[in-house]
Amino acid sequence: MQLTEIYQPIVQELEDVEDGLKAVSVIDAPWMEELLAYALKGGGKRLRPALAIFSAKFYDFDMPRLLPLTTSVELMHMATLVHDDTIDKSNMRWGRETINKLWGMEKAILLGDYLFAKAGALTASTENLRVIKLLSETLMVITNGELAQSASAFALNQSREHYYFRISCKTAALFVMATESGAVLSNAPEKSIKILHDYGYNLGVAFQIIDDILDYIGTEKEMGKPVGSDLAQGTLTLPGLMLVEKYPLNNPVQKLFADRKQTENIAKTIEMVRNSDIIGKCFDIAAEYKEKACRGLRNLPANESRESLYNLADFIVNRRR
Amino acid sequence: MQLTEIYQPIVQELEDVEDGLKAVSVIDAPWMEELLAYALKGGGKRLRPALAIFSAKFYDFDMPRLLPLTTSVELMHMATLVHDDTIDKSNMRWGRETINKLWGMEKAILLGDYLFAKAGALTASTENLRVIKLLSETLMVITNGELAQSASAFALNQSREHYYFRISCKTAALFVMATESGAVLSNAPEKSIKILHDYGYNLGVAFQIIDDILDYIGTEKEMGKPVGSDLAQGTLTLPGLMLVEKYPLNNPVQKLFADRKQTENIAKTIEMVRNSDIIGKCFDIAAEYKEKACRGLRNLPANESRESLYNLADFIVNRRR
Repeated sequence: MQLTEIYQPIVQELEDVEDGLKAVSVIDAPWMEELLAYALKGGGKRLRPALAIFSAKFYDFDMPRLLPLTTSVELMHMATLVHDDTIDKSNMRWGRETINKLWGMEKAILLGDYLFAKAGALTASTENLRVIKLLSETLMVITNGELAQSASAFALNQSREHYYFRISCKTAALFVMATESGAVLSNAPEKSIKILHDYGYNLGVAFQIIDDILDYIGTEKEMGKPVGSDLAQGTLTLPGLMLVEKYPLNNPVQKLFADRKQTENIAKTIEMVRNSDIIGKCFDIAAEYKEKACRGLRNLPANESRESLYNLADFIVNRRR
Repeated sequence: MQLTEIYQPIVQELEDVEDGLKAVSVIDAPWMEELLAYALKGGGKRLRPALAIFSAKFYDFDMPRLLPLTTSVELMHMATLVHDDTIDKSNMRWGRETINKLWGMEKAILLGDYLFAKAGALTASTENLRVIKLLSETLMVITNGELAQSASAFALNQSREHYYFRISCKTAALFVMATESGAVLSNAPEKSIKILHDYGYNLGVAFQIIDDILDYIGTEKEMGKPVGSDLAQGTLTLPGLMLVEKYPLNNPVQKLFADRKQTENIAKTIEMVRNSDIIGKCFDIAAEYKEKACRGLRNLPANESRESLYNLADFIVNRRR
């Protein structure tokens, strides 16, 4: 199922989110307007706002109450991407040049800071203390995960545990922020909040595993950024980790991480992974997380939104970009 | 009067703040502990926590309620410094090497993000929505000011208005956050909150003008960073601005901003400013802001804290580092 079809029941709400994002770039500060407009136009899938909206549709749904939160989770996502691209000195994202490439490192750092602050202000405007606290804690978790990733760059002896820790921090935490906050802001009972929290967590892990697979099997055109970006940054994701596990004594990752400039070893690593059973196994693991995410949903009211969450989970593990 | 003397009435509270800051660096994440410990040890004057504590001592003072906020304003301050030093590629701060110099740009960006998030979490724990909202808005104002500064780097035709706008964003806003939040969290009446807000604002402007003067007349040893740092970054502060106003057709700033590498023009600019009446005039302007800050205090209860706020204002305009 295509994303547009899955989003059909919340088309109006997602338009509200787009308007909310556009409103963020309307600001009496000429030095910022252009940057904000570029960052917010983006090519994102608006997954996090959609997760918040679907999660809120089980109980006391009220879009005006939810809107600042849906805008906030998307801004948080963008802010982390802007800082990530700056850190990685990436030139391309979503098939277009990055903020750091176009405006330089200085402005990219400050724009990210501004987006974090704006996300905080929007969340504060919900006046819901639980959601407000969740936002700061989520940002702490995300940056902690990014620092862990940065600290383990070009390190060979990494465990799968460490990998799951990192992706649960850097990706699943914001998925949880979206689903849990949607539930909280619709006055869902604690049990349902927990279910939607767990859905967000497991789906977030599945999402990131797929992302990491695509960095090995996708094409630059599909992904809007170069293949093997993670390896080039010294980041060992699940496919590479499994390759090192499979061939501990002789693998191109070793050489790549020892001499960081050997781009041919990136190609060799990708080729070796593609020619093995690793990708299939990674898809299986992602599917397990996706199944786990969906299993919990059985205990939620059987409505259209539950169907949408099932469909969204399917989409996430089957996507090619 | 020395700062230690001024701080005498709140020695215990400032120790609580130190403990609060130390607690921030106790974290189950080895890749972060060292960074945090280094950043938090610092050499700061803890001005912002002190401002919050003195401001809270007029009404219903409760240190446990205030503590997370006092820690939070100091973390916000540190986070902005960590990102500023990264943006400016500064090597020295407080007489020691910067985070970006020691650990690189990647970790400095992420550490700053983490400190912002932690400041948000601490502020959220006050459960006071007004203070929570103030924090996000303050961070928006600060980054907006920094972006304005970055956008006007190496530009000659800047107005004093633009300068005051920038420093009120990048410095006065956090002073206001400290004084206003201290007042709010001690249940001060609206009129007193406004007085302490204005005190923070005017004192913040005075503080930054003095900072900008010291970048022209201080020594590297006093300041813990090179003299003329602002000029080297293309930032025109009040003394430089007044030099351009005084000699619009022939001044070394013109040459410096045209060819950004001419370090001899930094020395020439500093010398020309030192040999003119500009520094005296800048001190006069800072003194005016300081007077304005203090005038408002007359309408607050006449207690020990009011004396402390007067003394702190004196200290700020007379300091040499």
